[in-house]
Amino acid sequence: MQRWKLTLEYDGAGFCGWQMQKDARSVQQTVEEAIKGFADEHVRIHVAGRTDAGVHALAQVCHADIDRPSDADTVRDALNYYMRKHPVIILKAEAVTTDFHARFSAQARHYMFRVINRPRPLTIDRGYAVHFYKPLELQPMQEAAAVLLGHHDFTSFRAINCQSPSPMKTMLHTRVEQKDEEFRFYFSAKSFLYHQVRNMVGSLFFVGTGQWSVAEFKRMFEAKERAQAGPTAPPQGLYFMGVTYD
Amino acid sequence: MQRWKLTLEYDGAGFCGWQMQKDARSVQQTVEEAIKGFADEHVRIHVAGRTDAGVHALAQVCHADIDRPSDADTVRDALNYYMRKHPVIILKAEAVTTDFHARFSAQARHYMFRVINRPRPLTIDRGYAVHFYKPLELQPMQEAAAVLLGHHDFTSFRAINCQSPSPMKTMLHTRVEQKDEEFRFYFSAKSFLYHQVRNMVGSLFFVGTGQWSVAEFKRMFEAKERAQAGPTAPPQGLYFMGVTYD
Repeated sequence: MQRWKLTLEYDGAGFCGWQMQKDARSVQQTVEEAIKGFADEHVRIHVAGRTDAGVHALAQVCHADIDRPSDADTVRDALNYYMRKHPVIILKAEAVTTDFHARFSAQARHYMFRVINRPRPLTIDRGYAVHFYKPLELQPMQEAAAVLLGHHDFTSFRAINCQSPSPMKTMLHTRVEQKDEEFRFYFSAKSFLYHQVRNMVGSLFFVGTGQWSVAEFKRMFEAKERAQAGPTAPPQGLYFMGVTYD
Repeated sequence: MQRWKLTLEYDGAGFCGWQMQKDARSVQQTVEEAIKGFADEHVRIHVAGRTDAGVHALAQVCHADIDRPSDADTVRDALNYYMRKHPVIILKAEAVTTDFHARFSAQARHYMFRVINRPRPLTIDRGYAVHFYKPLELQPMQEAAAVLLGHHDFTSFRAINCQSPSPMKTMLHTRVEQKDEEFRFYFSAKSFLYHQVRNMVGSLFFVGTGQWSVAEFKRMFEAKERAQAGPTAPPQGLYFMGVTYD
């Protein structure tokens, strides 16, 4: 048996999300079927960051234990062959030892959120960014994003059905960038609560429009009440950017 | 009657191209139907740059003569309302005099071509860029693109079914940029031959892989024979960027 670390890119528009669901195609199912095709083995894969329907990944990481002996290039190319009809690709396959775990060995996860800020709806970016029509201002959103840095109780940004045992998380990095009509939000943390990124972005919009001051954003964050925060931003703007391992 | 200059963005993946076709939805048909919905008039619109199926537009320009009196914001919003089910949007409507013609008044047309250069196929960018798997080098492609500047016979890059009376065109600007695994090609000219941009890009690939030197590219260009040039690059990498008027 060999444990393989697989780095994946996928188009979230083509799947019901990472996790298996009845009557809908998940990324997990697609990769596991490809392993079945290649090695004739029923393998359960483990992922660094489960993503919802519509959420994209530029460098998702999962691992799989496969009995069939092979080399990294063959594993990558064979699985890609079996997945060729679906918008998911293995960018890299690496042989790792069994003390590597895609989920539990992760030191940091990196997300990006794309917003197109203009009056008119999207055409080309529909499905790959979120449309926000009220004018957003960069600097207040940058200041508010900095409020999130460090070890905090993130209950204000936690989805009701979040499975995490604790709302305490450590935000390692935040950044908000603007280029013409596009804003990009970057967040890094060891782990995130369910819907945390989309909920943070939804509240940062309130600061960007001037509806909240940075001080009001901070008060809402410190209130630790989901109901006081902004709405959940739609999934199609969210990109799982990558994972840092030791 | 008022002549309206309309600036449009559209996703080429959602249409059979600009021009009307039987049994397929064109951008032209979608805009003309919207005018019919708004003004109850059968209007024939004129466009700056007809695009093929799959080709995108960030700022296409067309004009339409409409009898129903209205103001620019209403024209824009009403037409967008009637087109809301299709991936096309009017970014701007402007009242112009009848000496303005979207096609004949154009001083320059601007195109961009996106290529993702990596071994693995595309997922997220499928339909919005072209995949090229052999490694490309930037500098030779920049030098070859500069060979195209000025007034030349572009027969080498002219599609067989091109309707243009002459193969003589003036290239005003070329630029090739690289950012990580993405290359972008920019071209500006008063007008282009049919498939000219996609044919130029197809030949620049030969220079990028080292199959042709810049001198060989120049010889092929000067040979004025379509058969000596490279293949036509696929449509989904092409973006109509905009038009310059006086």
